[in-house]
Amino acid sequence: MEMSRSGNAFALVKRVEKSVWFQGFIISIIIIAALTVGAKTYSLPSGVELAINYLDTFITVFFLVEISLRFLACDDKWRFFKDPWNIFDTVIVIGSLVPMSDTDMVLVARLLRVFRVLRLVSIIPDLRFLINALIKAIPKMGYIALLMFIIFYIFAAVGSIFFEHINDKLWGDIAISMLTLFRVATFEDWTDVMYETMDVYPLSWIFYVVFIFLTAFVFLNMMVGVVLDVMTRETAEKEHDAQENNHQALVTQISELQQQVARLADKIEAQDKQK
Amino acid sequence: MEMSRSGNAFALVKRVEKSVWFQGFIISIIIIAALTVGAKTYSLPSGVELAINYLDTFITVFFLVEISLRFLACDDKWRFFKDPWNIFDTVIVIGSLVPMSDTDMVLVARLLRVFRVLRLVSIIPDLRFLINALIKAIPKMGYIALLMFIIFYIFAAVGSIFFEHINDKLWGDIAISMLTLFRVATFEDWTDVMYETMDVYPLSWIFYVVFIFLTAFVFLNMMVGVVLDVMTRETAEKEHDAQENNHQALVTQISELQQQVARLADKIEAQDKQK
Amino acid sequence: MEMSRSGNAFALVKRVEKSVWFQGFIISIIIIAALTVGAKTYSLPSGVELAINYLDTFITVFFLVEISLRFLACDDKWRFFKDPWNIFDTVIVIGSLVPMSDTDMVLVARLLRVFRVLRLVSIIPDLRFLINALIKAIPKMGYIALLMFIIFYIFAAVGSIFFEHINDKLWGDIAISMLTLFRVATFEDWTDVMYETMDVYPLSWIFYVVFIFLTAFVFLNMMVGVVLDVMTRETAEKEHDAQENNHQALVTQISELQQQVARLADKIEAQDKQK
Amino acid sequence: MEMSRSGNAFALVKRVEKSVWFQGFIISIIIIAALTVGAKTYSLPSGVELAINYLDTFITVFFLVEISLRFLACDDKWRFFKDPWNIFDTVIVIGSLVPMSDTDMVLVARLLRVFRVLRLVSIIPDLRFLINALIKAIPKMGYIALLMFIIFYIFAAVGSIFFEHINDKLWGDIAISMLTLFRVATFEDWTDVMYETMDVYPLSWIFYVVFIFLTAFVFLNMMVGVVLDVMTRETAEKEHDAQENNHQALVTQISELQQQVARLADKIEAQDKQK
Repeated sequence: MEMSRSGNAFALVKRVEKSVWFQGFIISIIIIAALTVGAKTYSLPSGVELAINYLDTFITVFFLVEISLRFLACDDKWRFFKDPWNIFDTVIVIGSLVPMSDTDMVLVARLLRVFRVLRLVSIIPDLRFLINALIKAIPKMGYIALLMFIIFYIFAAVGSIFFEHINDKLWGDIAISMLTLFRVATFEDWTDVMYETMDVYPLSWIFYVVFIFLTAFVFLNMMVGVVLDVMTRETAEKEHDAQENNHQALVTQISELQQQVARLADKIEAQDKQK
Repeated sequence: MEMSRSGNAFALVKRVEKSVWFQGFIISIIIIAALTVGAKTYSLPSGVELAINYLDTFITVFFLVEISLRFLACDDKWRFFKDPWNIFDTVIVIGSLVPMSDTDMVLVARLLRVFRVLRLVSIIPDLRFLINALIKAIPKMGYIALLMFIIFYIFAAVGSIFFEHINDKLWGDIAISMLTLFRVATFEDWTDVMYETMDVYPLSWIFYVVFIFLTAFVFLNMMVGVVLDVMTRETAEKEHDAQENNHQALVTQISELQQQVARLADKIEAQDKQK
Repeated sequence: MEMSRSGNAFALVKRVEKSVWFQGFIISIIIIAALTVGAKTYSLPSGVELAINYLDTFITVFFLVEISLRFLACDDKWRFFKDPWNIFDTVIVIGSLVPMSDTDMVLVARLLRVFRVLRLVSIIPDLRFLINALIKAIPKMGYIALLMFIIFYIFAAVGSIFFEHINDKLWGDIAISMLTLFRVATFEDWTDVMYETMDVYPLSWIFYVVFIFLTAFVFLNMMVGVVLDVMTRETAEKEHDAQENNHQALVTQISELQQQVARLADKIEAQDKQK
Repeated sequence: MEMSRSGNAFALVKRVEKSVWFQGFIISIIIIAALTVGAKTYSLPSGVELAINYLDTFITVFFLVEISLRFLACDDKWRFFKDPWNIFDTVIVIGSLVPMSDTDMVLVARLLRVFRVLRLVSIIPDLRFLINALIKAIPKMGYIALLMFIIFYIFAAVGSIFFEHINDKLWGDIAISMLTLFRVATFEDWTDVMYETMDVYPLSWIFYVVFIFLTAFVFLNMMVGVVLDVMTRETAEKEHDAQENNHQALVTQISELQQQVARLADKIEAQDKQK
């Protein structure tokens, strides 16, 4: 009896959880949470600040209740944690439990609350699909990314060997050099970096021009690769299906024709025997 | 009789309005209007300025008459306002009625006259098609734009939490932070922003590099998505049609063959019965 | 007799002109001409300078002789000037006749000699094809370019109306404003321009962000359009041909089959009548 | 007997060399070599520096032994040097034999050791394939690269003729001018360069805008060309195969049908003769 009552409650929770109305309500709460995060970056009168703190507590509790209900409504508790989006949500909700009043942790607490905006991604199905699609595109770039890293590493090593004594802030060690090269790759004031080293090594422009060409060339190919990959997967597949259907229709039609001819042959055979 | 006369007048107006010559004339007037807008940005002798003001009055009146005639020439008055391009034209024409002599409104009046250049878009059919095509491409980017906004929002919140005390002009509140991040995303002197925060938080380069990678990656995928979308719509369709035609031709031909064989079978059947 | 001798001479000229060896020789001369153009930008000892001047005279005479021979070798004199590449060559050769010793004209003379490098384009067939292909791609961008111009014009007009009093050098008149906007569109120190106007109009960032989004969006679509256009023209055509061939093969084969069946029908008919 | 023993040793070497375990071991050594290269760019306590020097000697010896074994294990000594990756490895290994203790050569020695990181590319098959694919894409860009060079050369010549007296550091000779133009092409503070020359030649903005449009336009077409090329090679091929298979299946099926009809015709013929 106790069981069935809780069963009914669970069914209700499940129904509520799936309803469009409830989804819309959660999305509103997340947007409000996002707005409080944004509002906190302005200097506000203390009354508003206090109101926001109360609102924050409410949101924290609401999210905690919502995820608990979702967990309870799940039939298979193990499957709940197999869905990476559930883990994602749980981590965000637990993270935002850090109290904001504690002055030592206030920055961390505010930071953790920022990530609540990410719950928008996990709750809107289209965004979830989008993220899944983006994540799927990453491994395709794996080896190109490794190659890019090798190029950066070698040029950074060469850069810090030769240019360290020119500007310690740009070429001090291999990590700083890689950051400088990333800056060069984004064309950000790269000539300032170049002119500085050209005063000492007049031919050092070769270093920069070769680096820019190499990274641009590899990047271009990476882009082409990704475009190609997505394209072949989606477009070609669709077209291929249409073509396959057409082909199958023809095969079927010709098979029918073959049977027709075969029946004709049988008939003539029969005629033959009749005589 | 009154009616028929006005009917004749309307028919004349309609004929004039549709003529290539009249279209060319309106385009010339719009270009002249555009040139006066441009000319006003130069300091001119007062005589020329006066002439331009008279010209402006003439253009305003001409546009008013033209759109009134177009409205009168339209059989179905409701359909006139259902075409968004007509509303667009009407708003622009009415907007430029604000008098230029009034010193308080002079800036607004000049601004509203600038938009008359946009009438070029509404009057040249190819440009109108182009704009329609561009507008159709927007919703496809909807969710990616939302994702981009979420990324900007989160990084802006994190940025103003940690960097506000470093540079209030760049990270003062979440709106300014988003503008700063937009600047970083366009690679505009982004290292200046980074070096400033790296003096306080030496590891803050991670923030910028991750942000640049994320936005570049999502943007790249958005671009691929749009390319794909337009491509599948246009190219595939065309090719698909050609293929469908070929397929249909084959189906028809084989059907004919099937009928031929069927007739043959009938004939043999008949032969059979004859005997 | 005179005629035939000159005829022989012409035939010889024609043969020489077409020979790979002669083409290679002209290309070498053009490259030498390009190198002298480059060498002149260095400060050279007067002896070398003199040698280069002599070399220049030789190249000028050689080009003059070469184009004259090419003209004489052409059977149809009119067709010679119908080929735009011949006009292109002739203009360049005549242009470089301006004497270099004249101190008033020395800059112009040097400038005109620079264009001799362009003869590389007209003499290497692959480059000529490439240029033709690039020129063919231009009209496809026509209306998008017009739209882009309208966007620039309107924003430049708005910019010079509101920002002229802030910075006359950037927003002085509509031409300067368009140059400033081009700079913004290339992301070149655009925030400097923006921060300056934001001091007076704090919301003027909207102007820049909207402008960047508009131009980027239209440019993106232009790029997609060009890619699409080239692609559909080349790829689709090739594939379409292969498909058409396959289709034609099938049609022919089925037609043969139809004739086979028709002959069979005739035979049975004949049998029928025989009886 | 001696022979067979060494034969056995070779077989062992070959087996070891091909084993996944050994490949993993070499990759680890290369990564350690890369890390020592990176570590050396930091200022380290002398004990660590000494340890790194010992490690470096070990890596040098290890690589020398490894490549020797690989050479010995190769049946056909000539084929070993026909594989460009083997030559690549050999050059890198020999290059890093330059002693590091020699103070005169220390920079060169460090530089040569940096290139050991490149052995990662030659040992990971996927990276090797990637590099091969990238190298294959280069010739397709050949003529466009030549055209780009001609554009740069002409603009650089014009630039140094007219702007040399304005800024010697940017337009001093044709090589420096080309570097300046490369900077303009990357949009790097190009307006600074332009405003400087506009003070002398107010119309010189035309030079920059035309240059930017030309390079951007040619570059865009290059990009499209490469995308197209890779695409037609890969996608079209795959699809083409599928289509060819379908086509062949139909041809076979119809051929069977033709034979069926032919047999039918023979039978009727036979019937005919029977009678």
